[in-house]
Amino acid sequence: MANFRLNILGCGSATCTLRHLPSCQVLDIRDSLYMIDCGEGAQLQMRRMRLKFSRLNHIFISHLHGDHVFGLPGLISTMALLQKGGTLTVHIFKDGAEQFGRLLDYFCRDMPFEVKFNIIGRSDDVVYENDAIEVRTFPLFHRVPAVGFKFTEKPKLRHIKPEMAEFHGVPHYAMSALRRGEDFVKPDGTVVANEILTSPADKCTSYAYCSDTVRNDRVAESVRGVEWLYHEATYDSAFAAKAVARGHSTSADAAEIAKLAGVKKLIIGHFSNQYVDDNILLDDARRVFPSTILANEGLQIDLL
Amino acid sequence: MANFRLNILGCGSATCTLRHLPSCQVLDIRDSLYMIDCGEGAQLQMRRMRLKFSRLNHIFISHLHGDHVFGLPGLISTMALLQKGGTLTVHIFKDGAEQFGRLLDYFCRDMPFEVKFNIIGRSDDVVYENDAIEVRTFPLFHRVPAVGFKFTEKPKLRHIKPEMAEFHGVPHYAMSALRRGEDFVKPDGTVVANEILTSPADKCTSYAYCSDTVRNDRVAESVRGVEWLYHEATYDSAFAAKAVARGHSTSADAAEIAKLAGVKKLIIGHFSNQYVDDNILLDDARRVFPSTILANEGLQIDLL
Repeated sequence: MANFRLNILGCGSATCTLRHLPSCQVLDIRDSLYMIDCGEGAQLQMRRMRLKFSRLNHIFISHLHGDHVFGLPGLISTMALLQKGGTLTVHIFKDGAEQFGRLLDYFCRDMPFEVKFNIIGRSDDVVYENDAIEVRTFPLFHRVPAVGFKFTEKPKLRHIKPEMAEFHGVPHYAMSALRRGEDFVKPDGTVVANEILTSPADKCTSYAYCSDTVRNDRVAESVRGVEWLYHEATYDSAFAAKAVARGHSTSADAAEIAKLAGVKKLIIGHFSNQYVDDNILLDDARRVFPSTILANEGLQIDLL
Repeated sequence: MANFRLNILGCGSATCTLRHLPSCQVLDIRDSLYMIDCGEGAQLQMRRMRLKFSRLNHIFISHLHGDHVFGLPGLISTMALLQKGGTLTVHIFKDGAEQFGRLLDYFCRDMPFEVKFNIIGRSDDVVYENDAIEVRTFPLFHRVPAVGFKFTEKPKLRHIKPEMAEFHGVPHYAMSALRRGEDFVKPDGTVVANEILTSPADKCTSYAYCSDTVRNDRVAESVRGVEWLYHEATYDSAFAAKAVARGHSTSADAAEIAKLAGVKKLIIGHFSNQYVDDNILLDDARRVFPSTILANEGLQIDLL
């Protein structure tokens, strides 16, 4: 089981090539899979990377361009064919819910599998949370409405030191409070400080996904302080004008946003098909932000 | 340039596997490409097999199940992005034109590329023809309306024997009639038989595509005498009841249809994901019809 692992299923831009597939990622967080964007071929990449369909219950769609969504019908049909029951929630703009809702009504009728659409807006909102994580949208700046997604782990519980808990006679029912950080009060009123009875909780991590967007400092505000940032880098700095004209960022733009936001690590992706060697983009980004790596199909990174 | 070459882009059934992709084929006939069905991943397979998007102007869709059509949006978007102008005709049932028409209106607006839908029915009809070929639909027998496609080369022109034409003083304007097989009449009224002045035209071929369908002898009538038959063989004979229940054929069914129709060669495909070794299906078919081969992704066969 992965604690917080990023899987890159596709990191190319609009026209697929033999080097890169369209956008798709899967976060594997404590036994649950969360897909971000769903370019064509997502279902096959799931199989190649041995990510189980049955563990996938949420898909987050950043915007309604084909290279970020055309994998949805095939993926959902396959899940419907394979699963007996179950629910999948697709977090998506209203138009996308209408388009794909109609298509699925036609092609996946009579299947014992429920697809829910959670309509999201181009705003700063919590769109999903559970005990482990919170997922927020934030605005991106592209040719069509687009959002980024920030996945933040919720604070974890402290670890009980069993020998100390036994020594101080902590009863079973008091353990939960200890794990949340509270002190222990003995029946005689003596207070045992939490630090004596527990060791610190595991570290939490956070991940933000920004694709597609032109460079905008407000994005840096939205992702301030995250551990890991994925930011699109469709072109290198030599094509800055082309990037702006098409609503995209350069690798240097991505690096500047990473620096401005104070993130720990930057992953760049959404590479234009004009590059045979993506290291041009990597070098361009590293001049500004050295802790940068290239996304690539099949890449798995533990973000904890 | 291929004269009449079949390219197998995908020959799996509904749920994709790491061995087979969903249904898609491309006939390469004298510089034009004709796609039959368009499962997810078709555009990527076009690139892998070095089939140029710019040579593709017709797509024929057999029926509206996802594994035969979900590659359309991605393929068409990519063609729209890459091509400056041009027209693509999709021959498809009415519901499919409506479903994909809406999707393309949303995702491919403002692109200088025209997609026409030619509405086909579940009948025996010529749905397309040009100087080189005729394409006919014929009914298949599946869970939803489905048709097969028969591609027949039109009779070719005879070859002029230059030395004989010169000897008999055939003028330039009379050559076309000679190539069509007419005799030559000299100014003095002497008739020179066509066989003296020309050699026979090149051989013509024909190809029929039958997927998806339950075994039905009427299919054999429809494809009677074709050179090459592609017939689905989702299961082997041991799963005959399952095949019927799901509107599919076994490999022995496919072979019996080939035998009944008097075709020269049979290609089987649309293999269920339950097979790790497709030779089970091949052996099953060859017991009935020895001239059978297995389809496979990347396979290219010259049908002339």
